[in-house]
Amino acid sequence: MDYYSSHISKLIEELSRLPGIGPKSAGRLAFHILNMPKEQVAELANAITSAKENVKYCKECFTLTDDEICPICKSDRRDHKTIMVVENTRDLAAYEKTGQYHGVYHVLHGAISPMQGIGPNDIKLKELIMRLKDNVEEVIISTNSTLEGETTAAYISKLVKPMGIKVTKIASGVPVGGDLEYVDSVTLLKALQGRVDM
Amino acid sequence: MDYYSSHISKLIEELSRLPGIGPKSAGRLAFHILNMPKEQVAELANAITSAKENVKYCKECFTLTDDEICPICKSDRRDHKTIMVVENTRDLAAYEKTGQYHGVYHVLHGAISPMQGIGPNDIKLKELIMRLKDNVEEVIISTNSTLEGETTAAYISKLVKPMGIKVTKIASGVPVGGDLEYVDSVTLLKALQGRVDM
Repeated sequence: MDYYSSHISKLIEELSRLPGIGPKSAGRLAFHILNMPKEQVAELANAITSAKENVKYCKECFTLTDDEICPICKSDRRDHKTIMVVENTRDLAAYEKTGQYHGVYHVLHGAISPMQGIGPNDIKLKELIMRLKDNVEEVIISTNSTLEGETTAAYISKLVKPMGIKVTKIASGVPVGGDLEYVDSVTLLKALQGRVDM
Repeated sequence: MDYYSSHISKLIEELSRLPGIGPKSAGRLAFHILNMPKEQVAELANAITSAKENVKYCKECFTLTDDEICPICKSDRRDHKTIMVVENTRDLAAYEKTGQYHGVYHVLHGAISPMQGIGPNDIKLKELIMRLKDNVEEVIISTNSTLEGETTAAYISKLVKPMGIKVTKIASGVPVGGDLEYVDSVTLLKALQGRVDM
């Protein structure tokens, strides 16, 4: 039996399909939406459809963008000889927020995961190799510090190194401002192994 | 500076206006939506707009419904002499889930809150009094157990009792299955005051 009108039930159902939104939050969101001004509801629905319709992959780096070529790839103020490989557009945005990275990116849209049946051909890896034909000097691998991320990093390194291009990987270690007490032991060991001269 | 395409930024902005969704969750949701099949995105956007367009207040009890009169008010299997007063449609749904309440409802859409400038005229209170002209026998007040809910309950009781209608209020007490240790002392005292013969 349904306790809500069919339109409310449908809205709750659609919202609860989103990640991290259970039936209770979906209910709260649905009633909030019903109480929003009509124009604001239209704006929300429109933002959803038009993002899906207009956002595409950059033909260079495969980040999600409104244009054929993203602003970073288009920019002549970026160092196009340095390519940072990330798993997704959100990781790219995290680096852009630092404002300190001046190279370009390559977005894989995933990581190799034999467990989930995701192989090298299921991510934008061929596309990376294609780009390396140009005068690239360094590939910085910045995949996640997970089993899948590490597997992907190792795989890329094996492919790219024989091409005579420098391959680096971002450092693992203790987060800045982090309390040692709360850092897991794998991270602590990585931080110890990666210790640098002072 | 924007790290995302304008369509993505707009989507994140709209999503982060929703309650309980911060900028990080909004980002996660936005990229999830971009990865959803096109039809599913359309369904989500459509559920939002059509809920807002089609859901209205029941002319009897003011719950949110698709029809002029909601299925509960329309039903002749419900006891129309007993009206339970709730703050919102979600509270109504909570009682409907029990399957054990056979009366009808009245949805206030809020509670009196002098702090937030919400007075008796800002909720569906006049509408409740209007309904009481019929042969209503009991009004069960089921507002929240908060300052606002209690204020509203007291206010309604004062209005309705002089009309010769029985006014009751749902019991406060220890939740069923709840561990006494974790129950706050106000609730414990209410439970003690409301003790019943065994």
